[in-house]
Amino acid sequence: MRKKRRHLRHHVSKRKLHCMMLFNLGMYPDPNFYYLTKYDGYGCLILLKDREILLVPPMEYQRARKTVKGTSVKMYKKDFWDVLRKHARGKNIGLDYNSITLSFMKVIRKEMRKKSFVDISPVLREQRAVKTQDEIKTLKKACSISDKILKRFFSSFSRFRTEKQAAQFLETEAVKEGCGLSFPPIVASGSGAAEPHHAPKDTPIKKGFCIIDFGVKYNGYCSDTTRTVYVGKPSEKDKEIYNLLLNAQKDVVSSVRPGMRCSEPHKMIMHKLGDYGRYFIHGLGHGVGVEIHELPNLKPKSKEVFENGMVFTVEPGVYIGSRLGIRIEDTVLLDARPKVLTRISKDLRIIKKSG
Amino acid sequence: MRKKRRHLRHHVSKRKLHCMMLFNLGMYPDPNFYYLTKYDGYGCLILLKDREILLVPPMEYQRARKTVKGTSVKMYKKDFWDVLRKHARGKNIGLDYNSITLSFMKVIRKEMRKKSFVDISPVLREQRAVKTQDEIKTLKKACSISDKILKRFFSSFSRFRTEKQAAQFLETEAVKEGCGLSFPPIVASGSGAAEPHHAPKDTPIKKGFCIIDFGVKYNGYCSDTTRTVYVGKPSEKDKEIYNLLLNAQKDVVSSVRPGMRCSEPHKMIMHKLGDYGRYFIHGLGHGVGVEIHELPNLKPKSKEVFENGMVFTVEPGVYIGSRLGIRIEDTVLLDARPKVLTRISKDLRIIKKSG
Repeated sequence: MRKKRRHLRHHVSKRKLHCMMLFNLGMYPDPNFYYLTKYDGYGCLILLKDREILLVPPMEYQRARKTVKGTSVKMYKKDFWDVLRKHARGKNIGLDYNSITLSFMKVIRKEMRKKSFVDISPVLREQRAVKTQDEIKTLKKACSISDKILKRFFSSFSRFRTEKQAAQFLETEAVKEGCGLSFPPIVASGSGAAEPHHAPKDTPIKKGFCIIDFGVKYNGYCSDTTRTVYVGKPSEKDKEIYNLLLNAQKDVVSSVRPGMRCSEPHKMIMHKLGDYGRYFIHGLGHGVGVEIHELPNLKPKSKEVFENGMVFTVEPGVYIGSRLGIRIEDTVLLDARPKVLTRISKDLRIIKKSG
Repeated sequence: MRKKRRHLRHHVSKRKLHCMMLFNLGMYPDPNFYYLTKYDGYGCLILLKDREILLVPPMEYQRARKTVKGTSVKMYKKDFWDVLRKHARGKNIGLDYNSITLSFMKVIRKEMRKKSFVDISPVLREQRAVKTQDEIKTLKKACSISDKILKRFFSSFSRFRTEKQAAQFLETEAVKEGCGLSFPPIVASGSGAAEPHHAPKDTPIKKGFCIIDFGVKYNGYCSDTTRTVYVGKPSEKDKEIYNLLLNAQKDVVSSVRPGMRCSEPHKMIMHKLGDYGRYFIHGLGHGVGVEIHELPNLKPKSKEVFENGMVFTVEPGVYIGSRLGIRIEDTVLLDARPKVLTRISKDLRIIKKSG
C-alpha cells in the first residue's frame, strides 16, 4: 500500500505538481482511493512530494488509523475545505478526472480558488494494470472462493427452476463467504445465452446451452469466471462447437507472454475459431482488480503490452443468432508464464433436466 | 415514466436548449437515467422539445424496447457518437453534471464540437423529491419487504454470534426476496453503536444497545429503517433514554405537514431531546427514492419545504461517548398527513443473550 502511494508521489515531483488529492465522498467506494488506501470510508487523500495526509470525519478516525499505515490521519469536522486548503498549498494540484463529476468540480473550483488542476487518472490507470504481490494474493483468494461457490452451484444446478433462482444461489453463497459481487451474476439459457449481457429471468431454464458468468469481490478485489453448461442432450455438432471454443481458449491463454502486444490474443482466437470467428462479437478480455474492467484490454485495437503481474480475463464466445451462445472465461495471472486463477473444470457439463 | 420525461422536456424549451442527453455507460446504473427510464442497461436518452430517443447497443435493443414505452429506441454499433450527433443537433445541450465525470466530459467535448453545455441536474434533483403514484407504490413495497425481513431477523437475533453474521442474515434475506441493498447493513453493538457508520465486525455481539440500520432496493427504489435492540438487561436509565428518543421520534414524524420548512423537524427534535440534544450528532433525515440520499434534507440549514408526495427518513439518535448509541429511523410518506411506511414495531426489544 505504502509502495503504491510512494510511486504516485514520484509523479508529484515529476509533473511539477504541488500535491495530488483523491476523494472518497460518494455512495460507492472510489476505486483509485481504495486502491491506494484499502480504506473505504469517507475521506480525502493528499499526496505531497515528501509526505501524505488522509483527512477523515471524526466518526471514521479510529478505523482509518487502523487501516492506513504510513499516512498521517487527520480529522475534519465542518471545516473540511479549510483543513484541505491548509494542507494543499501551492498552485498545481493533481486530481483523478475519472472519478470527479462536473458538479463536484464546481465545488472544488469555488473552494480552491486560483489553482491549476491536472488529470492524474492516466498514471493511476497504468499503475493499476500491474499488480503487487499483496494484490495477487487477494486476487487468488477471490478466484478460489468463486471456484468453491461455482462447484456448489453446479452440484445444485438441476434443482434450479428459473435463471433467477440460479442467480440468487450465487449471490447468497457470495454473502455467506463474506464477499460482494464483481457484477450481478449472469445466468442465460436458451436464446438468452446469445445475449452477452443477458439479465436472469423469472422463467424456467430453457434447454440448450446456458451461460453462467459470475465473480465475487473479496477484500475489494474482483474475480471473473464464465462457464457454459448444456441442459438436455447436446448434438454432436453442439459438442464440436463447444470443444472448438474450449481448445481455442486454452491455447490462447497458454500462449500469452510478457512483451507480447495485448491485441495479439484476439487475432489468435479469430484464427483458431476459423469460420466461427464471425460469431465472436465482443472483446477477448480485460484487466481485473479493484474494478472488474481495467487495463490491459485484450481487444484488436489495444495499445498495451503484456507485463508480469498483469491479471486479466480471456473470454472468447460463440453466439449464433438466437440459437446458441457459448462463452468460456478465466481470470489469468501473468507471472513469466500465464497462470489460470479460476480453476474450476471447463469440460462441458451436461445437465439432464432442470427444475 | 412518460410523464416524468415529459416534465423534463418542458425544461428543454423553457431553458432554450436544443436537447438534453442522459448517459448510462458506467458500472452502476445512473440514478437519473434509471429514474427516467426504469431501464438499467447501457444507453443514452435524448430528450428533445417534441420527442425522445433512447440509443442502445444491439445486445440491449429488445430489452430496452420492452422496458421503455413512448420512446423511440434506436441501436448504435461502433458509431455511437455519429448516431448521437445526428439526433442531438443544435447548439445548446443539457447534461446531468451530477453524473458526468471530467474524463467523460473531455470525450463529449471532443466528439461534440462547437456546442454549449448546461447543467440540468438541479431540475432533476427537484423533480425527484416529489414522488409519482407509481414510485410511491414501489417505495411502499420496498418498505414492506424490509419489514418482513426485519421481523425474521429479530426472531433469529439471539442465534447470531457476531455482528457480521447478523449483517449477512439481512443480506441473504434481501437476495431471497429478489432485492438489492440500499447500502451495506449496519449492525453495531457495544461501543460500535456510538459510531453512526459502524462497519459490522467479526467479533461477538456485545452487551448493551445494538443498532441495526437496513434497507432493501426493490425495482430500483430504496427503503431505510433503523431499530435499536438491547442485548442483556437494560437499566432503568437505559430504558428512559430509549423511550425519550422513541417518543420524540414519533412526535416529530406525526407533526410534519405540507408547507412546513424541512429544517423545522430538526429544531423540534432538539427541543424534545432536551439535555440529550447535544448527543445527537447528525442530520435528522433525507429523501429516499432511486438513491438512498436525495432531497429533501431534514437538516437545520435545509432550504426545502415539505410537499405532498415526498418520501423521507426521520432518524434521530443519541450517542453518548463510547458508552451508548441508540437510533430509531422510519421511512415516511407525506400525503396530507405523514404516513410511516416502515411499520415494524419500535418498542424496545430486549435480547437476553446472543450467540
